[in-house]
Amino acid sequence: MARSRVPRRGAGTARRSANAGSFTLEEVAAAVGGRIAAVRAVRLTGVAPLESAGPADLSWIADERRARDAARSAAAAFLVPDASFAGGRPCVVVPSPPLALAVWLETRRPPERGAAGVARGAHVHRTAKIARGVAIEAGATVAAGARVGARSRLRAGAFVGEDASIGEDCVLGPGVAVLAGCRVGDRCILHAGAVVGSDGFGYVWDGVRHRKIPQVGTVRIEDDVEIGANATIDRATLGETAVGRGTKIDNLVQIGHNVVIGEHSILCGQAGVAGSSRLGRGVTLAGQVGVSDHASIGDGAVLTGQAGIARRGRVPAGAVVSGMPALPHREFLKRAALAGRLEAALERLAALEQAMAKMRKGG
Amino acid sequence: MARSRVPRRGAGTARRSANAGSFTLEEVAAAVGGRIAAVRAVRLTGVAPLESAGPADLSWIADERRARDAARSAAAAFLVPDASFAGGRPCVVVPSPPLALAVWLETRRPPERGAAGVARGAHVHRTAKIARGVAIEAGATVAAGARVGARSRLRAGAFVGEDASIGEDCVLGPGVAVLAGCRVGDRCILHAGAVVGSDGFGYVWDGVRHRKIPQVGTVRIEDDVEIGANATIDRATLGETAVGRGTKIDNLVQIGHNVVIGEHSILCGQAGVAGSSRLGRGVTLAGQVGVSDHASIGDGAVLTGQAGIARRGRVPAGAVVSGMPALPHREFLKRAALAGRLEAALERLAALEQAMAKMRKGG
Amino acid sequence: MARSRVPRRGAGTARRSANAGSFTLEEVAAAVGGRIAAVRAVRLTGVAPLESAGPADLSWIADERRARDAARSAAAAFLVPDASFAGGRPCVVVPSPPLALAVWLETRRPPERGAAGVARGAHVHRTAKIARGVAIEAGATVAAGARVGARSRLRAGAFVGEDASIGEDCVLGPGVAVLAGCRVGDRCILHAGAVVGSDGFGYVWDGVRHRKIPQVGTVRIEDDVEIGANATIDRATLGETAVGRGTKIDNLVQIGHNVVIGEHSILCGQAGVAGSSRLGRGVTLAGQVGVSDHASIGDGAVLTGQAGIARRGRVPAGAVVSGMPALPHREFLKRAALAGRLEAALERLAALEQAMAKMRKGG
Repeated sequence: MARSRVPRRGAGTARRSANAGSFTLEEVAAAVGGRIAAVRAVRLTGVAPLESAGPADLSWIADERRARDAARSAAAAFLVPDASFAGGRPCVVVPSPPLALAVWLETRRPPERGAAGVARGAHVHRTAKIARGVAIEAGATVAAGARVGARSRLRAGAFVGEDASIGEDCVLGPGVAVLAGCRVGDRCILHAGAVVGSDGFGYVWDGVRHRKIPQVGTVRIEDDVEIGANATIDRATLGETAVGRGTKIDNLVQIGHNVVIGEHSILCGQAGVAGSSRLGRGVTLAGQVGVSDHASIGDGAVLTGQAGIARRGRVPAGAVVSGMPALPHREFLKRAALAGRLEAALERLAALEQAMAKMRKGG
Repeated sequence: MARSRVPRRGAGTARRSANAGSFTLEEVAAAVGGRIAAVRAVRLTGVAPLESAGPADLSWIADERRARDAARSAAAAFLVPDASFAGGRPCVVVPSPPLALAVWLETRRPPERGAAGVARGAHVHRTAKIARGVAIEAGATVAAGARVGARSRLRAGAFVGEDASIGEDCVLGPGVAVLAGCRVGDRCILHAGAVVGSDGFGYVWDGVRHRKIPQVGTVRIEDDVEIGANATIDRATLGETAVGRGTKIDNLVQIGHNVVIGEHSILCGQAGVAGSSRLGRGVTLAGQVGVSDHASIGDGAVLTGQAGIARRGRVPAGAVVSGMPALPHREFLKRAALAGRLEAALERLAALEQAMAKMRKGG
Repeated sequence: MARSRVPRRGAGTARRSANAGSFTLEEVAAAVGGRIAAVRAVRLTGVAPLESAGPADLSWIADERRARDAARSAAAAFLVPDASFAGGRPCVVVPSPPLALAVWLETRRPPERGAAGVARGAHVHRTAKIARGVAIEAGATVAAGARVGARSRLRAGAFVGEDASIGEDCVLGPGVAVLAGCRVGDRCILHAGAVVGSDGFGYVWDGVRHRKIPQVGTVRIEDDVEIGANATIDRATLGETAVGRGTKIDNLVQIGHNVVIGEHSILCGQAGVAGSSRLGRGVTLAGQVGVSDHASIGDGAVLTGQAGIARRGRVPAGAVVSGMPALPHREFLKRAALAGRLEAALERLAALEQAMAKMRKGG
């Protein structure tokens, strides 16, 4: 599913926009594996959505609905799924314009690696193992026994705790903390302020106080996982909290201890998953969804925004659920509609009661 | 709208309370542009709400309702909208006591600037441009090509990324990150842990995995914006995410990529706005409100606590909406009340059915 | 209440698991004050839940329901409330297995203190008062006039602001900020990225803009409080925001200015409490609960997941409430069930109306 978002203005102002130097439609076609439909020499300098594209911008037409908008766009050329959508203007035909857009942007702006080496002002313990090509900025910390894999980048203030390990080609943003013993796979991106391995929220009442249950487990983040800014993932009480490969976690998401998340799932902003719950493969939690503890969410299930799953709740594979308490999405919509008819229904009920009373008297 | 909150105790214990040295009612009147009603020499040493004020404290009476509480207060003098509210005790008459309170507190405790200069242990790239009067604390980082405007303050651990720019008279709290290419206006306050410019949450399924759509846009924060602790604002995919001047964003708020927020809006704690949604001027999002993607919230609209706006949802200017799915606030309250009558209604319905059945038999 | 969570796999992989060296059932019994029921020499090397325990692991049986699972467990021995639950296998009888588990894990892995002293690369102001046994890591900051109590530990990037004070035996994780003038008691744990003392969200509209009300109060955190990763607690406008002793706050929780929370309360992940609200003793806020401003929550009250309390709302002591608007939990469940009957009820109503109409014609 595409989560690309298009701006309404000022694309040209984007410092990091793929606008350095100019490029040709041929270069685009070659990079994205597309076919040029309307051949015409165009000199492109940028990439922008239909609404804000200028006469030197490449744009894209996601589907037929957008073809109308394209007709009004000043863009010089388009990525299209069907040549006809471009109305005879220069275009590159590809199976998926959003995918082609992603590929082209990657081509135009490969991620910045940072200068390899340990900067002065970085704090790297002598027992830490730092692979080749690693960039560690001033103010970053790598604690005793920790490992950082080849070509990974630690921005200022990033922290890798005792015996923790970071894979290859990872990026840890400013202030990211991967705490003691936690393991992060290859090609993971942890955005600013993300925390991996904070203690699980585990206590037992001893008659006088909430006594802390030492959280002695860890966290395992598999390959190709992205974790959003200020998101938090707790370590397990025992064993491990696990996030499956390719899963993407948005900003301010909370993952409790011993949670296990399958591969290629999507957790949107401010969603939360409480202790020991399990998410399958390809699950989608929309924004602000709450999954209580010991719940189980089946493969491919979709929980819509703000949905709430109760303790030990079960969501079947492929289901789409909404609301709190969560219902199948259609049922949720139906009940919302029915609630709007309740007032009138109560009046009709009262009218019937009067009619009935009259009839009895009459009879 | 006043969001000032009053403590119930211990105002005197506030280290940073405006309690250094003593002051007179004349000084207060002059500073806030008020008129002294009941003239009497009073020696004031502090400021406190009615409940906790002592005999040397200045307090305030927001409205008539609070006049009763004032009669029981030990305060020495009051800021009042109407002299009669003070019951003959010393007071300064002003149009708005909360506003006068704000002005007086500003007068008594101008914000701390910090010592100008770059502290040892700060990491400032040689290509960064630092204006006069800037204070950069040990452990703060300013990356290549970044700019910091006059008199701005970077606390320990603050990070300003490549080519980012910070305006004049700003404060970046500990651990704040303003990432590559993002622009912050003048007089902005970013509280501890706030992140500006993390990647938008944009992927496209390529048949095998969620492929990252490079987020090559930026964030533009206009003048006089305040951003709460650990709040997160994502950069645009292309173009920019924008927060209008004078808008105030509370702690742990999430702003998605390409969101555009108008001027003087208020986003309360833990509210979230998903990608490409647009908020007008003077919008209020109460705590934990969720606005899904591509939604549009009109000028001056108010979304009450935990309200949820669906994908592509529209809230008209000036509307007050509640609940999920969101409804006009009155309709929301009415439905909640009607739901409480449903059980009895079902019983009445059953009774009618029986009566009807009997009648037919009878007939 | 026990919030301990059990993993489903790989307990043996936990670096910090209590698995260093082997131990005997006698040692366990002595440490937790239990009685060995089925005497047999067992050599234990680890601790794991029933599902993942191996033949050298100690496990626990929380209650009779779990006794069946225990029969299938490979564990070598069990902590049990009743000897019969162990089915004749080696066990230690204790009043509360979760509590005994906590005690044993503490015994096996006392919290790491860190090396006492101020590391090179730490920034400690000359006027700060650092007690004996304190460990301050490189990249941590202690500002002018601040105090840090005996044996407390500041991890990399931790920040203690001007005149703030940290008690004894505290741990401040990476990137924690305790801002100017705030006070933290003894034995408190602040997890990575937690912020104490950010400005309260207080403004007053001056006709042109939201004017900031200077937040000159502080925060007081009492003894034995734990604050989760990236949680935020605002300072008071005047006076103080207060968190009572023994209260546990989970990740990403937001506490507004002038909030007062009683002792031994539990605030789960992503809960939020707005300005000036008061929570009693032993209150439980489940995940994503929202308490609006000036509300009051009685002692021992429980708010279930995503519950919402309105402005100035009152929840009586001991109540269990759910939903938004919040209702007594039973009423909430009843209404959810009744809503499912509404569609059929509307059909019955229509049928009755027809019957009535027919009868009248007929009559």
